[in-house]
Amino acid sequence: MATPIGEEMYRWAGDLFPICRSITGHGVRQTLRYFQKILPELTICEVPSGTPAFDWTVPDEWNIRDAYVMDDQGVKVIDFNQNNVHVVGYSTPVDSVMTLEELAPYLHSLPHLPEAIPYLTSYYRPRWGFCLSHRARQELKPGRYRVVIDSTLAPGSLTYGELILPGREEREILLSTYTCHPSLANDNLSGPIVTTALAQELAARFDRRYTYRIVYIPETIGSLVYLSRHLDQMKRTTLAGFVLTCVGDDRSYSFLPSRMGNTLADRVAGHVLKHRAPGYATYSFLDRGSDERQYCSVGIDLPVVSLMRTMYGVFPEYHTSLDNLSLISPSGLGGAYQAILSCLDLLEENYTYRMTCPGEPQLGKRGLYPTLSTRENSAIVRNLSNVMAYADGDHDLIALAERTEVFAEELLPVVKSLFSAGLLKKVD
Amino acid sequence: MATPIGEEMYRWAGDLFPICRSITGHGVRQTLRYFQKILPELTICEVPSGTPAFDWTVPDEWNIRDAYVMDDQGVKVIDFNQNNVHVVGYSTPVDSVMTLEELAPYLHSLPHLPEAIPYLTSYYRPRWGFCLSHRARQELKPGRYRVVIDSTLAPGSLTYGELILPGREEREILLSTYTCHPSLANDNLSGPIVTTALAQELAARFDRRYTYRIVYIPETIGSLVYLSRHLDQMKRTTLAGFVLTCVGDDRSYSFLPSRMGNTLADRVAGHVLKHRAPGYATYSFLDRGSDERQYCSVGIDLPVVSLMRTMYGVFPEYHTSLDNLSLISPSGLGGAYQAILSCLDLLEENYTYRMTCPGEPQLGKRGLYPTLSTRENSAIVRNLSNVMAYADGDHDLIALAERTEVFAEELLPVVKSLFSAGLLKKVD
Amino acid sequence: MATPIGEEMYRWAGDLFPICRSITGHGVRQTLRYFQKILPELTICEVPSGTPAFDWTVPDEWNIRDAYVMDDQGVKVIDFNQNNVHVVGYSTPVDSVMTLEELAPYLHSLPHLPEAIPYLTSYYRPRWGFCLSHRARQELKPGRYRVVIDSTLAPGSLTYGELILPGREEREILLSTYTCHPSLANDNLSGPIVTTALAQELAARFDRRYTYRIVYIPETIGSLVYLSRHLDQMKRTTLAGFVLTCVGDDRSYSFLPSRMGNTLADRVAGHVLKHRAPGYATYSFLDRGSDERQYCSVGIDLPVVSLMRTMYGVFPEYHTSLDNLSLISPSGLGGAYQAILSCLDLLEENYTYRMTCPGEPQLGKRGLYPTLSTRENSAIVRNLSNVMAYADGDHDLIALAERTEVFAEELLPVVKSLFSAGLLKKVD
Repeated sequence: MATPIGEEMYRWAGDLFPICRSITGHGVRQTLRYFQKILPELTICEVPSGTPAFDWTVPDEWNIRDAYVMDDQGVKVIDFNQNNVHVVGYSTPVDSVMTLEELAPYLHSLPHLPEAIPYLTSYYRPRWGFCLSHRARQELKPGRYRVVIDSTLAPGSLTYGELILPGREEREILLSTYTCHPSLANDNLSGPIVTTALAQELAARFDRRYTYRIVYIPETIGSLVYLSRHLDQMKRTTLAGFVLTCVGDDRSYSFLPSRMGNTLADRVAGHVLKHRAPGYATYSFLDRGSDERQYCSVGIDLPVVSLMRTMYGVFPEYHTSLDNLSLISPSGLGGAYQAILSCLDLLEENYTYRMTCPGEPQLGKRGLYPTLSTRENSAIVRNLSNVMAYADGDHDLIALAERTEVFAEELLPVVKSLFSAGLLKKVD
Repeated sequence: MATPIGEEMYRWAGDLFPICRSITGHGVRQTLRYFQKILPELTICEVPSGTPAFDWTVPDEWNIRDAYVMDDQGVKVIDFNQNNVHVVGYSTPVDSVMTLEELAPYLHSLPHLPEAIPYLTSYYRPRWGFCLSHRARQELKPGRYRVVIDSTLAPGSLTYGELILPGREEREILLSTYTCHPSLANDNLSGPIVTTALAQELAARFDRRYTYRIVYIPETIGSLVYLSRHLDQMKRTTLAGFVLTCVGDDRSYSFLPSRMGNTLADRVAGHVLKHRAPGYATYSFLDRGSDERQYCSVGIDLPVVSLMRTMYGVFPEYHTSLDNLSLISPSGLGGAYQAILSCLDLLEENYTYRMTCPGEPQLGKRGLYPTLSTRENSAIVRNLSNVMAYADGDHDLIALAERTEVFAEELLPVVKSLFSAGLLKKVD
Repeated sequence: MATPIGEEMYRWAGDLFPICRSITGHGVRQTLRYFQKILPELTICEVPSGTPAFDWTVPDEWNIRDAYVMDDQGVKVIDFNQNNVHVVGYSTPVDSVMTLEELAPYLHSLPHLPEAIPYLTSYYRPRWGFCLSHRARQELKPGRYRVVIDSTLAPGSLTYGELILPGREEREILLSTYTCHPSLANDNLSGPIVTTALAQELAARFDRRYTYRIVYIPETIGSLVYLSRHLDQMKRTTLAGFVLTCVGDDRSYSFLPSRMGNTLADRVAGHVLKHRAPGYATYSFLDRGSDERQYCSVGIDLPVVSLMRTMYGVFPEYHTSLDNLSLISPSGLGGAYQAILSCLDLLEENYTYRMTCPGEPQLGKRGLYPTLSTRENSAIVRNLSNVMAYADGDHDLIALAERTEVFAEELLPVVKSLFSAGLLKKVD
């Protein structure tokens, strides 16, 4: 289903797709500045190379201007300007002439996906290399080739974005996405785009119960850097968190739980998906592959999950040039946006209630109940009755909804009318 | 299977069926006085109209003498004296002449069950109305009708019955049934009838471990009135409770658990039904519909379940004139009586035991065990061995039986022989 | 699969099979002295008749020299020297001449297994009797028979073997087997044989984490006698225990859990069987039949399970002369040996680990991780990542393996490399 926000997000994707991002470098800055135009409060932070982050160190900054492999006729048979996936991420500079045979160890292709250019990186061991489709590779003729990678790998900084939207409560909801992939759409340009749309919606709200911490980081090193700077506070205040990735295609909805699978984030995402996307795919934490590896790690233990469309590693185009703008869509992005927004909205309303009087109250005298008893009981009556039965101070709204087997969004008007009538009170 | 008690209960049903009961009024008093002849200790209590009960107030008392709709030929086309279900319960008085068109909004019938007169009430909003079969309704001819309901709705009292049978322990078992339905058999004349038969049996016992609290109340308002007067004591002493309703037909056994489904009442009823009525229907508390709504409500939280034959709302004749004496039977009533009595008997014997010596005792020297070992192990030997294995001070008799996968009634002789031999002691 | 240790165990079985063992007597001593040649540290203990053990008393010692039933032609139609199962265990002496009719009550056979001699005993009530195949019984001709049992039932002692192999820790692993069956192979000559092979392997180890308590006892009375002497210490120190029985055939693997099914012994045996013997049969404690009856009894409550090949009572030859050397095999014995040794080895390595730094450590700089990211993730990488995710100080090695769905033996090299790198620490 196409929505205005879905269309808008897809336009952003078109603007941002061509930029060559990596875990550091100008592509990341350019991307964050684009989002800053949408979210003026977004702060762009720079962390110098060499800064320690737990067991890690911020690497040198990588920038690339051009790269190609040119045959002896002057034809660029591989050209970074055609597709930035052609260069192994973090490739060291090279300018050399070599035979095809000498070049072979530096070429990467996928025989089982002959049209796809694979996406590869080598952040922590100096290398260089080119990626190309297997079909193109097979067309390379023996001979001598000029091989150029005009890149710089030198001290600089790691760049991340941060946006804090204060709420009435100090407790926080974390949205985390990564910005380190070059021209790849579902994994993961969709992530920062949906994150930005959600941030825009949240920022526009007059009243927020929770504080929102929204971060745009390079995967792994970025979350470690960010956590190393904010861990004490985040452990104290984080109520639930979401890693936003692979939120752009139309094929499915997917859920990756937290490490132990029992946090509020797990509960809200599971509840929303059950009712909004029945048939969604549910994975194990053993299938994890993004920053929940850090957020849920031992000693960090934040309540973080991923609610996705088709998950990384699962779709055939994953980490190849086939994960392009044709793979994602306005409705794919919009569906993910709506599902995650449902989670946030539900968290905002997720109070724990308790009935204020023993026994069922008399709803009739308050106009809350039909006075003529018939065999037919409406959903309203059932929800009223069930909320009253289980609002015992132990069930929060999500638990009430799970217990009574309806979507929390359906229960909410009933809860609000009972609360307004003084029949429910909030408990901590 | 017909039993003398089943036949006797069915005779009581024949006597009581024609009386027009409601949540207040002479029909209730007449019914309770009938039971008082069987249970002389039964106390009949009157609670004045206007008395508060938690969020509720005892309503005015309703009595009805006659009601009919008469055509211009003087024929009563609807006649309360034919079936008291014809009048909407708590109808205000009316004496008027109106056209069929004017009368239509006051007539209620069921197109999908054209032979059935529906049963309707309007306790808390003043209304009047007639119920009739859809077939009869379709035969009404246009014209003018005399419409009479000779009823009184005026300050009076709510009537309930209470019987306390003291036991060796202060802890109580609650039997609760309702007396507010007019000529309807399974739901719920069967309830007070089976309750009375059980009370008669319990009253005749020389020795009772537990105290029995047996109440006959109008549904909802009656349980609220009763609870508002006895809540502190009942919360302190109630060990297990049963709402008796729909205990008259032969089609099935049904179980409705308590709110959280984990009380002693749940355990005993589940165990008895599993062994006495395999294939019984088990419902969720979400399917509830009687006084467990009050007993299990937040702030009251008593351990109350319903063990039924075919449950209200489930059988097609529910709340219509088809729920009549032909729907219930001596064997239906007798089967429910026996199942609930099994629960009570099991509760009386439900001690927690612990072995008095480490290791298995030598049963042979006590004559409790065959001395010749063979491949064949009798059920006695298996039960002896299993009781000894699990009588650890954590398993009560029901838990022992569940753990060892036999009916507690089968285990009881073995438990008693080990106890007599000094090999088991009771623990709290 | 034939192994040298399997072949050796089968040779021991050939030596020991003909000996007539019972719960007391020279056959037990002879058997234990045989094992003492393999395990010089094995202590043989004697407990006098009449010694109390909890609710029991050590019975008189039984020895038998000869027994037969001879027809009037001087032909021994039943002969103890042909098969010691022919005599009911603990038969009192007899020397008499009687008709076949008079003899009949003393003869035991199995009509449904006409070739099998049943195995019967009568330890605690004085009796005598002969067991024979039903086929042989039917060939007996009317006439007079000389009936001789040259046995002694007199004060003596109960004999058991004990071997303590000290470890670095005081905490103990118990191996318990029984030595009271005459010429019966799977149940249970296989038990002491596999126990002896395991003890030989453990005794040869330079370094043991845990102390091993290895006992050879007569079933029931032996475990009670042993427990009555060592209960306080064993309750304090026993970490896990195994009753070794029915560990000789090739047909299946079987698991009998402890009383509550939740001990470390249950966990290790379940894990090993799941990975080493998928499709193994799992029983309930309700199916128990050996010394776990005492070890797991109320007041003793040791964490003891049985990991078996085909369980007692389940195989058709059970407790008959058909349970002979042809039923067991080198591979049957060897498979059980290996499975139980896997349990012991896993227990020795079953530490609880916790990551030493927050976030995932950088494995690349330590040479523990490939530096080139590709779509293909090896099992090593997955195990590294999963161990790091769940080494939270709550998961021991078995729990880590269960959680990450691999056999603990596969996880161990990864755990050791992370531990060596200082990334894991052991916690209690």
